[in-house]
Order: sequence, then C-alpha cells, then structure tokens
Amino acid sequence: MADGARMVEVRPETYSYVFNPYREPIARVEPGDRVVIHTDDAFESRITKKEDIPSRALATAKLLNPQTGPIYVEGAEPGDTLAISIESIEPSRDFAVSVLVPYFGGLTSTNFTRTLQEPLPERVWVWNLVDGGNRLVNEDLGVELDWEPFMGTLAVAPDLEAITALAPGPFGGNMDVPDVRPGNTVYLPVWNEGALFYTGDCHARQGQGELCGVALEITSKVTVVFDVIKGKEIEWPRIESDERIMVVGSARPMEDAARIAYAELVLWLEEEHGFDRWDAYQLLTQAGGLYVGNMVDTTYSLVASIDKTYLRS
Amino acid sequence: MADGARMVEVRPETYSYVFNPYREPIARVEPGDRVVIHTDDAFESRITKKEDIPSRALATAKLLNPQTGPIYVEGAEPGDTLAISIESIEPSRDFAVSVLVPYFGGLTSTNFTRTLQEPLPERVWVWNLVDGGNRLVNEDLGVELDWEPFMGTLAVAPDLEAITALAPGPFGGNMDVPDVRPGNTVYLPVWNEGALFYTGDCHARQGQGELCGVALEITSKVTVVFDVIKGKEIEWPRIESDERIMVVGSARPMEDAARIAYAELVLWLEEEHGFDRWDAYQLLTQAGGLYVGNMVDTTYSLVASIDKTYLRS
Amino acid sequence: MADGARMVEVRPETYSYVFNPYREPIARVEPGDRVVIHTDDAFESRITKKEDIPSRALATAKLLNPQTGPIYVEGAEPGDTLAISIESIEPSRDFAVSVLVPYFGGLTSTNFTRTLQEPLPERVWVWNLVDGGNRLVNEDLGVELDWEPFMGTLAVAPDLEAITALAPGPFGGNMDVPDVRPGNTVYLPVWNEGALFYTGDCHARQGQGELCGVALEITSKVTVVFDVIKGKEIEWPRIESDERIMVVGSARPMEDAARIAYAELVLWLEEEHGFDRWDAYQLLTQAGGLYVGNMVDTTYSLVASIDKTYLRS
Amino acid sequence: MADGARMVEVRPETYSYVFNPYREPIARVEPGDRVVIHTDDAFESRITKKEDIPSRALATAKLLNPQTGPIYVEGAEPGDTLAISIESIEPSRDFAVSVLVPYFGGLTSTNFTRTLQEPLPERVWVWNLVDGGNRLVNEDLGVELDWEPFMGTLAVAPDLEAITALAPGPFGGNMDVPDVRPGNTVYLPVWNEGALFYTGDCHARQGQGELCGVALEITSKVTVVFDVIKGKEIEWPRIESDERIMVVGSARPMEDAARIAYAELVLWLEEEHGFDRWDAYQLLTQAGGLYVGNMVDTTYSLVASIDKTYLRS
Repeated sequence: MADGARMVEVRPETYSYVFNPYREPIARVEPGDRVVIHTDDAFESRITKKEDIPSRALATAKLLNPQTGPIYVEGAEPGDTLAISIESIEPSRDFAVSVLVPYFGGLTSTNFTRTLQEPLPERVWVWNLVDGGNRLVNEDLGVELDWEPFMGTLAVAPDLEAITALAPGPFGGNMDVPDVRPGNTVYLPVWNEGALFYTGDCHARQGQGELCGVALEITSKVTVVFDVIKGKEIEWPRIESDERIMVVGSARPMEDAARIAYAELVLWLEEEHGFDRWDAYQLLTQAGGLYVGNMVDTTYSLVASIDKTYLRS
Repeated sequence: MADGARMVEVRPETYSYVFNPYREPIARVEPGDRVVIHTDDAFESRITKKEDIPSRALATAKLLNPQTGPIYVEGAEPGDTLAISIESIEPSRDFAVSVLVPYFGGLTSTNFTRTLQEPLPERVWVWNLVDGGNRLVNEDLGVELDWEPFMGTLAVAPDLEAITALAPGPFGGNMDVPDVRPGNTVYLPVWNEGALFYTGDCHARQGQGELCGVALEITSKVTVVFDVIKGKEIEWPRIESDERIMVVGSARPMEDAARIAYAELVLWLEEEHGFDRWDAYQLLTQAGGLYVGNMVDTTYSLVASIDKTYLRS
Repeated sequence: MADGARMVEVRPETYSYVFNPYREPIARVEPGDRVVIHTDDAFESRITKKEDIPSRALATAKLLNPQTGPIYVEGAEPGDTLAISIESIEPSRDFAVSVLVPYFGGLTSTNFTRTLQEPLPERVWVWNLVDGGNRLVNEDLGVELDWEPFMGTLAVAPDLEAITALAPGPFGGNMDVPDVRPGNTVYLPVWNEGALFYTGDCHARQGQGELCGVALEITSKVTVVFDVIKGKEIEWPRIESDERIMVVGSARPMEDAARIAYAELVLWLEEEHGFDRWDAYQLLTQAGGLYVGNMVDTTYSLVASIDKTYLRS
Repeated sequence: MADGARMVEVRPETYSYVFNPYREPIARVEPGDRVVIHTDDAFESRITKKEDIPSRALATAKLLNPQTGPIYVEGAEPGDTLAISIESIEPSRDFAVSVLVPYFGGLTSTNFTRTLQEPLPERVWVWNLVDGGNRLVNEDLGVELDWEPFMGTLAVAPDLEAITALAPGPFGGNMDVPDVRPGNTVYLPVWNEGALFYTGDCHARQGQGELCGVALEITSKVTVVFDVIKGKEIEWPRIESDERIMVVGSARPMEDAARIAYAELVLWLEEEHGFDRWDAYQLLTQAGGLYVGNMVDTTYSLVASIDKTYLRS
C-alpha cells in the first residue's frame, strides 16, 4: 500500500451483535484506503475492575461481543475474495481484562456440553499495560506478558444468514486466532456487495485455545487496508504471514475443524503452488503446523499452516 | 547423568505389538544407565521403495508398530513416576519412508469414522538422508526437510491391560508427538514392578497432526537414561524441555484430549509451581500452547504447554 | 381446540431459506385457529423422477429446504412458549422422493467431516403412494412402507440471528425428528413478537438418523393449532405425545446433543413433575428413551423421552 | 437347541477385570450345551444399601465390573463367529442397586471429558424386586418398573490385547445394550481358539443411554447356548431378535458409533439379504432404527436395526 493512502476513520455509534447482511453499512471505503476502526471489548466495557462480578455486570447486557460494522468495501462482489492487511492494533485504554463467566470456557461444562454440576467460581483479572505498552502485568499472578495484540473477531457478512458475533465460521468471525495480527493478511470469501466487513474483540494477547474463554480483552484502534481479489473464490479463511500460509477451520467436534483446515490447505497447495494433491498431503504430513486457536467458542477454530520456504513459486 | 554411566544395549529378538504387563522383560537396567535401544520402523521394514504397494506389503503382517521391550527399570514400583531422558536418536539406515495406507489417515474415512466411499490411492514416498544426515530429500516433492527425529511411540505397560502398540493413552504409547525428542525428558506413570518400558516407531520428523497417518518412518538406535521418582504419582504423560513443561492428553473427540492436557497442566501448576488453581487457569489462557500431535491414531494426542519463564521455581 | 375453530389457509408466494426474525409475516393467526399450511419439499420439487441427477437438478437452486413463513401468532411475546398441536399432514402429490446428494449424508464425508475421497454415486428413489395413501412402494427396493408423515422442519425465528433452514437448534428448525407428527404437540421458545413460525420439509416417513440425509420428501398440506403459554420459558424444543414427554437436543458432537436432551428432561421432571433432581436423573437412567433423529444435518438431533406413566401429576 | 441338551454350570472362584486372551479358561463347553453362568454385579456386591457411600465402598476395590470367564467353546477358531442364544436371566438376590459415582455418568464431567468443576453428590438407590419378581420398586422415587433383564457385558477375548471390562468394542464387552436379553441371539467375532467368552454386569433393566452410568445392577444366573458358525467373519457385534436384526457400534465421538453401526448394517443387507448397497442405504434411511445403548462408558454404544419384515430372506 502506498504511504500516501487516504485515511478513513470508523467510529461506531452503535454496535452489531450479529454478522448481518441486512444491516446498513456504517462506512464506505476504497481498496487501498488506510482504515482506522475503533472497537470495544467483548463485554462492551462493563467489566473493568477486580471487584466486578461478571454475571452481574453482564446481566443487563442482552448480547456480547459488540462488532464495529459493516464496512462496505467498494468493488467487492459475491465470488471475490477480500484481503485484509492488518497494519496495527493500538490500545485505547491502559489495561486488559479477563474473567471467568459461569458455564463458559474450556474446563467447565457449558450450554453445549451440559452437565448437572455447579459452575466454576467467578473471577476478574485486570492486567495493566506497563513498560511503554510493551508488556502487561497482573499483580495476583505476579507474571508479566508481552503485548502481542490481535483481532479476536473479524468477518464478512454471510450469505443470507445473520449469525451471532460469538461464532466463528467460513465467514471468519469469532475465530480467536492469534495469527490475525499486525503484519499478517487475512483472506475471506465475499458473499455480498461491498463484502460487509465487521471487526471487534481485540486481544492484548492470548494463549492457544483461549482456555478460560476470555483472552486479555481490550478496547482498541485497529488499522487495516483492504484489497479485493476479483473472481477468486475461497471456502474458508486464509492467513498469510511473512513466513507461513495458513487456513482456519472452525467446527465441532474439534477433529472436524482440523480436517477442514488441512483439507483446504492441501487444495491450496495443489491449486496455487504446483503440488500434486498427494504430494501436498505428504508435505503437510511431514512439515505442517496445526494449533488450536479456540476451544471455547460456538465452534472450535484450528489453524493449519506450512512454511513458505517449502512452496514452489 | 554422569558421563561414566554404564552403557546397556538392547537389541530385540522379537517385537511386541502390545504394551503388555505380562510379557517377560528383554533387558534389565538401572536408573542412570545409558540405555541404547534398537528399534524397527512401524512397518517392520516391509516397505522400502516407491514401487511397494502398502496393502500388499502389509498383507502378511499380522500387526503393526513393532515395539522393543519391555525393559525392566530396577527400583520402579507402582505409584512412582518414570523419567526418560532422551539423549539421541540415530538412524540405522539412510532413508525414511511414508505411505498412504487404505482407510488410514487424517483426510480419509477410517475404521472409526466409517463411510461407504472408496479409499484414497496407495502411495509410497522415500526420503533420502543427505547432507551428512542433517536433511531429507524426496525427489517427487522436490523438497528438503531438516532431520528432527523423535520417538513416535514410548510407553510403560498399563495396569492389567495389554493394549495395542497403535494406541496412545495415559501410559504414553503411540502419541506421535514431536516433543518426544533428544534433549527432552518424558515422565510416565508406573503401574508395574520395573515400569516395563517399550519404545519404537521413530520418526525422522513429522508435522503437527501427522496428517496422512504415517510420518517419516525410520529404523534407529535410541539412547535414553531412566530415572525413577519415588512416590510421585502422575495421571498422564508429561514432557519437559529446556524452555517448556508440557502435558500430552489423548482422547476422542479431540476436544476431550485438549481438556485432559490443559486440566492436567492446571493441576501441575497448582501442585508444584505455587499458583492458585484459577490463576493457573488464567495464565494458561493467556500464555499456554496447544498443538495437535496426532489426528490419526486410535485416540488423538494434543500437547498443552507453558514456558518455564512464567513459572515460580 | 373447539371444533368450531376458525380455519386459516397459508399458501406462500415465495419461500424463506432462513429462519428469519426480519422477514415480514405472510399470515397472522390467533391461538386456537385451525391453520392449514402448504409446504414444498426440501428440493422445491426439482427432483421428481428416477432419471434426475441431483447435483444437476439442484445446480440452479441457490438454497435448499424452502420454508413457509413466518406466521405471526397473535399474543406471543418474548419469554412465552409456543405450543403447536399437529392435527394432520396430507400429501399434495402421489409420490415421495429420496436421493443421494454428493458429500451429504451419514455414511459419506461432508462439508463438515472433510476427506479427500470421491463422493458416493448419485441416485434417486421415487416411492409411490399406494393403498389409498396408506403405504409407499419403491420398485427397485421391492419394499412397501407405511405412511407415517411428520414435519422435518418447524421453527420459530431466533433472537437476532437469521439461520439457515438446514439447521436444527433451540428454535426447532430442521430437526428431522419423526415425533413431530400428527397427534403430538411441539413446544418452542418465543423470542420475537408473534413468535414468527416457519415450517416445511414434510416427510412421508423416515428411519431414525435419516441415514442418507434425505427422507421420503413430500409436498404437503399441514394442519396445526397454536397455543401461547404466557410467561413460560423453555430452552429447547419439547414434544408431548399421548404416551411420552420428550426433549430434542441438537449439537455436535452427538454426545453433546444427548447431554442437552437429557439434561433438559431432568430439569423438566424437577420443575413440573415433583421429582428431586437426582431422583429424576435416576428415573431417566432406568426408564428413559434416547434415539437419534438426524445424524446428517448441520447439528445432530437426539430425542430423550420418558413415559407419562412414571410421572406424578 | 434340543431340550435334551447337556447342562453345564459355571460358578467362578475369582473374577477377571479384563477381557483377556491369556487367562486360563474356567470352563469348557460344547456348542449346544445349556450353560448356566453365575455373575456378580458391577460393584462386586460392595454396595447394597442406601446408606453406602460409593466412593468409600469402592475405595478398596482395585477394579470394577467383575467378569465370569473365560469360557472355552469347543470348536471355535479364529475367523469363526460365536452365536450366543440367551435363554434366561434370573436374579440371585431380591434387589437391584444404582448409584452416583463421582465423575462418572452422562451428565457430569469425567476422566475423559475433564473440567475443573466439583463432582455431583453421591447417592445410592435400592430397588426391591416385588410382584413375584416381575417388578422393581424404589421408595424414594415412588415408581415401579418392569423386570426387563439383560447382560450389560458379554465379550470374547480380543486378538492379542487384554482390555478392561469397562470397555465396549468389536469384541462386545461392556456395551450396556438392552437388546442383549433373553430371547435374542448375539453374534461376536472369534479371534482365539475356543472363543474365550466372558460375561457379567447383568441389569434388571436400563433406559436408553444408561444416563447416570449405573443401571439396575444385579447378581444373577444367566443361561445361554453357544453355537459356532464356521468360517464366517464379522467385524462388530450383531444381535437378532424375533423382529429385528441389529448391529452395535461403539466409538467416540458418538457419531462414529452411529456410522459404524449403520455401515455394518448396510453391508449385512448387501451380503446376506440381496440388496444392492445403495438400496440398503436407502432402506435404512426410511425404516432403520438407531438408539443409544450407553452414553457413559469408555466408548459409546449405538444400536442400528431393521425390521425383518423388510428383508428378503
């Protein structure tokens, strides 16, 4: 992108809680514009201190994970691919929060995996940004962690459906994948005129799996640049970094997410990198990467990858 | 381990195809001995060239994944933990093989995930060791990969059960986890006098997930040193490297393997590293690692980890 | 319902392919009205003879499973429960069809459970209504089956989301559960003013699991009577027959659907039938029913039940 | 079987807690003998009254689910099928018990589906045999249930492996399927000389799913007659009643058990009943049965079935 790119700032008046093809765009941008997007955290800033009780703080919230959007990208049409280059994620407050919410997370029963057991205790952890914003510290844990921000949620509107902003899927969504970070480019299928882009739920950082269900949630200012790849159809989100190409599969059970991610990566190697299908299968067997993005959302997200050094052309 | 340690060489006359508490030990060693173990590959060297047809080559083989063992470790008793420090893995031939076997692997239907579809085509890839054994090359793929060997299978005999060598589980087994590699230490629960250790199925390398079901299979000479931690009980395999501590969970569906691995790691942080249970849960949420070791065996193996830098003593 | 009930006929001009809270009602009815609803089959009547090739016949169809609706039920408000008494299902043609669609069904890989295998062959079976509409016969199979019609799909609009008509869920939807049949009453949660009821996808009959993914699909005329239970909140669809009470849970993996169905039934016995929670758990252990409605849709639907003879009041 | 059949009584001195090909037979019988087998309950009669605390009563028990066996059936060889005709199950005490064991059952987290939650409360229910043994009554529930006994566990020894008696599988085992009842015939694959039959864990009755993990456990006297079908190989357990033929699939996740059960039934219809494979798939789609036997054991057991009326001899 040229440095002389136009800058467009998107500051939402209200949020969307679904990835919705029917909602009016809140901004229109051109490919190549530098788009600065303001996002709230997953709890719409209702939880900010250790003494907050999540179930009480969220009792009046009808819905979670507020999204900024949709942003209409000029020229994007069904059958295209939307490329989102992530330039930066800046915090708009000096702390992050994580919490335990009843019946939500990776090591508790949930609305999906039902048991008759009591919930885990509620808890709030506040992590303060220190060291010029380079690190986060929580005093209870006595641990410092690096600032490694990414967008927990980014999506295009699905085709015909309006889907909760808590869901990951072919449209991207609430994938909670740390590789959706500055320096990387995310590719999403386009089903609607203007692509109708949504984002929110930025994280100061997160481990693989997002174990308790809630990363280091922040309010933030995200800068992205869109590109539209005309006539190129993809089925599932792809990510490209300097070192690797990746596919994100989201499904339950988790092995189905793994199958989707790796099957799409096999086909990608076959279609664009000159490998025979079975040679691609072999290469990924010996050199592929497969980590868990989230094990807590409505479907699980797994990331399959291969280093670019192994690719032809 | 002292450099003056006694060296014991274990060269099997026959292999075991189960992790079996009833089989006579083929060697007895002391903690601290340097134990050199000869292993065959998962196909007992029946497939060695591109023209081999796996289903035919394996038709006369009653069982797969031959194991060297059991090795009796003096002093190990039920309720202890066996520590296996892996010193080195050396190839005993100059190539590795990988194959497509009908109805086996991550992107095909299998004996467990049954469909009425035809199998994938059969294939053999031979990868030659080059560059003084530092790299492997396959001419069809035109790709070179680093030599990064590990033990696909290592186990202690279960309590009462004799379990196929194709299975991973609490006893270790066919985990196919690349972190079972030289420089690292693996910890397994002990259920029998002498622990009754088995190993085999060494791999020249493997991607995460072992996608097609067959890594770069090698015959090899493995050097390990055992230690017995008296009176310490663990539930699932643990691994320690210079940088990280890890737990391997094996189960189906894959989310159950993830739950086991992370739950055990939470408890480990609580019991040995001074974290409150919920703080441990929080730390792993923000800084834990979770990758797929295998998505192809009788149960799936996932590895949860945390960097040692975050641990209190 | 009084026999003198008003009769309202609902004949759609266009169909909906999502359970959509934003779509304008196509009819408004009162509780107690006898509502006659015309439905098309899951393929919108594009496949009618043995020679049809499903993938070709459906190539121009953007979406599947056309729904008649929404029907606005006067008086229904968020927080209520909608009761749907099914009076009759009459065929509006003299045959039913079932087909094999590529990568869809219970014994093939699918969009969710991905493999690299070829699809199963395509096939169409036409089953003719004979014996005065009491039985169906297919000449290839040489088998006659009883006419046991039910509604494969019935739903209320979700809260905020618009969800594909191929999906089952808390809103009902494409459950493919044979107990949604004449003589039984289905209960659904209400999230929107007027409940916004949809139905379609009637089946002449179906086995448990809907194995190949396509039941005996018919066009039909369904007669139902609505009732609104004010202020009663339920979480998942319930069904009542003369003999049993039932809950339908829909989720992946299938054990999560089983957990939902039985957990909701435990709570139902506790709340309305005077059982201690653990006694309810015990009763269902010894006398509950649990069958698979569908093993082919976007989530699996399982039906947990208990005979009314065991219930107190 | 001729009424003049020889009667053989099998009364074990010790039990087996694994299905073990290495254990010495405790009895040898001929096909056609009427074999009367004494079995203990799953808790080896350690829990007999409401006041017992399961975790304490079982604390000294190393293993659960004691099996009577192996019984050597003359003439059975690897590659044959063993047919077990169940003549009767008689209680050998006048009550049955069911309990809640910590972290075991369908609506709790378990050793496989791990969470950090507290366990459910412990409970014991004693059900007394009344009405001449035709019904069972529990006073807390105030419910009477019919006596509908079956064998929770019956197995042949696996090939090479010795597997916990808590597991169901291709060898039969702890399937907890109510159709393993008097009047029906069960078919199991034979991997060892003499088949090496085990049984135990009889239930006075059980709902589908065995929800809390523990049916109405009884001590009993089982009468069976064996037959050996020479040269017939089957892959998974089959059951035949007067009305239906059935296959039991056991796996995790549950959908894999469903796939196994129905895939094997498709092949059975193709091989022995003259159906084209795709016609068999179609028939089971429209008329098959699929219920959950257990949702609580090491793998889940599902039963696929078809009425004999649809079969061509």
